[in-house]
Amino acid sequence: MDRNDRVLIIIGGKEDRSNDKVILREVARRVGSGKLVVSTVAMSKGTDELFAQYEKAFRALGVKHVFNLEISSRGEATQDSKLRILDNAQGVFFTGGDQMRITSQIGDTPIYQRIREIYDDGGVIAGTSAGASVMSETMLVYGGDEESHVIGDSVRMAPGLGLIGGVIIDQHFMERGRVGRLIGAVAQNPKNLGIGIDEDSAIVVERGKGFYVVGSGAVYVIDGSEVTYSNIAEEDLHKTLSIYDIRMHMLSQGDRFDLTARAPRQMKGRAAEKLPEKEEETAKVA
Amino acid sequence: MDRNDRVLIIIGGKEDRSNDKVILREVARRVGSGKLVVSTVAMSKGTDELFAQYEKAFRALGVKHVFNLEISSRGEATQDSKLRILDNAQGVFFTGGDQMRITSQIGDTPIYQRIREIYDDGGVIAGTSAGASVMSETMLVYGGDEESHVIGDSVRMAPGLGLIGGVIIDQHFMERGRVGRLIGAVAQNPKNLGIGIDEDSAIVVERGKGFYVVGSGAVYVIDGSEVTYSNIAEEDLHKTLSIYDIRMHMLSQGDRFDLTARAPRQMKGRAAEKLPEKEEETAKVA
Repeated sequence: MDRNDRVLIIIGGKEDRSNDKVILREVARRVGSGKLVVSTVAMSKGTDELFAQYEKAFRALGVKHVFNLEISSRGEATQDSKLRILDNAQGVFFTGGDQMRITSQIGDTPIYQRIREIYDDGGVIAGTSAGASVMSETMLVYGGDEESHVIGDSVRMAPGLGLIGGVIIDQHFMERGRVGRLIGAVAQNPKNLGIGIDEDSAIVVERGKGFYVVGSGAVYVIDGSEVTYSNIAEEDLHKTLSIYDIRMHMLSQGDRFDLTARAPRQMKGRAAEKLPEKEEETAKVA
Repeated sequence: MDRNDRVLIIIGGKEDRSNDKVILREVARRVGSGKLVVSTVAMSKGTDELFAQYEKAFRALGVKHVFNLEISSRGEATQDSKLRILDNAQGVFFTGGDQMRITSQIGDTPIYQRIREIYDDGGVIAGTSAGASVMSETMLVYGGDEESHVIGDSVRMAPGLGLIGGVIIDQHFMERGRVGRLIGAVAQNPKNLGIGIDEDSAIVVERGKGFYVVGSGAVYVIDGSEVTYSNIAEEDLHKTLSIYDIRMHMLSQGDRFDLTARAPRQMKGRAAEKLPEKEEETAKVA
């Protein structure tokens, strides 16, 4: 494994853990015969139950070595005993919870350094929900769900783990009506591409350069590079957003996205065949 | 009043009826000293209470003549006594409920003809929620809320009242996570512009040529004219949508949209001053 093999698997939350497990299957495939560390650092309680769920799911998918990296305080993130859990890990999986717990407890600690090394050595770093948001340099934090989207919503940002640059990730995307807040975050500085990931949906980022979509839902890409007007710089944080000329792509399993060219395309031939198989869905439409 | 004065006020549902009433104020301003007919045809029960709410709100806004056009069967829509309620009306307001009740009960009846005449003679036709969806030639009907958006969601369409062409309206837009289904409806035939209206938000369409936004939320315009790929024509209705290169505008009070040029612009000067006044909002952001 080398740097070219590095992979991020960024999941919009509520990925299936008991049936087809399409997304966790992709994580397991990438980890292969290696060691997988599940970190429940984003959670303040119920960590054992959640770890047990993931351990069961990943073992059923053939991952032989699954460990729990539970960190309940920043002090613990500097302990050698915790650090050793990451020894020889091929993958790290961040569960959901509170994204600020992840960054405030492991940011700039030996644990973070080790995770970064695992990634740079060609490992796989995965995260769901809060664990998805932390992947980028800048992350959205609480607020702005299911209400009219005002300027103030999109300024609730904090520094993330920085495993991928140039993007802002949002999760539980359509389920929690977060389009407006992500558009607002993009409008602040259109150098960042907005990536909104639905539940039970994920992007698999290869070499930091592009991704493909897996899972049952959609992934929305918000490109602000052609925006001709926005009111995001106005001082009134309660004012509803107004932004013209956003380019948007709605992607689903079978689609790829080139982060450099900012262009989507369909997966064809062998690449598409490698995708995790989904069993026949039961009819949703009568 | 002549044809050039005709106005549609299309509301995303849950418009404020007891405080500032920004949107109902706009309806009242357009009706002026004329007669306003509120139609509860979209509802199967509770019509009296709902009419009483609107009557109170509109009277408080200075509308002197408010009548209830309650129609509980298609037979009633052909009765002279019902038709006479519309005599000399300057405006008609459709409440929420079920859009299919509106079209199935009054479509192609003398009631519909009279409403069409009121509009063509320079009147105002307003509608909220289901009453908003029916305005267009083609309307979205049930399904597709808050779940992954599959191809099947966007084919649940039915013929509307046809007071405005070239658009498909959706309401309770961000609150019910309907972006995907509207994108799907637009992708079916990009000649239609998608207009998604949040709750307590409305568009005021003048002469069928353009609109401006009023209310506290946002209005999203989905323009599919530049779409380069979509899977909407695939036969599997359960497949998640995939559509590239949508142009989207997020608009709020103070924005205009030109339906012919498909271009947004800011309202300036006297036009902006005519907008209904909103009292100082209480802080939503701590």
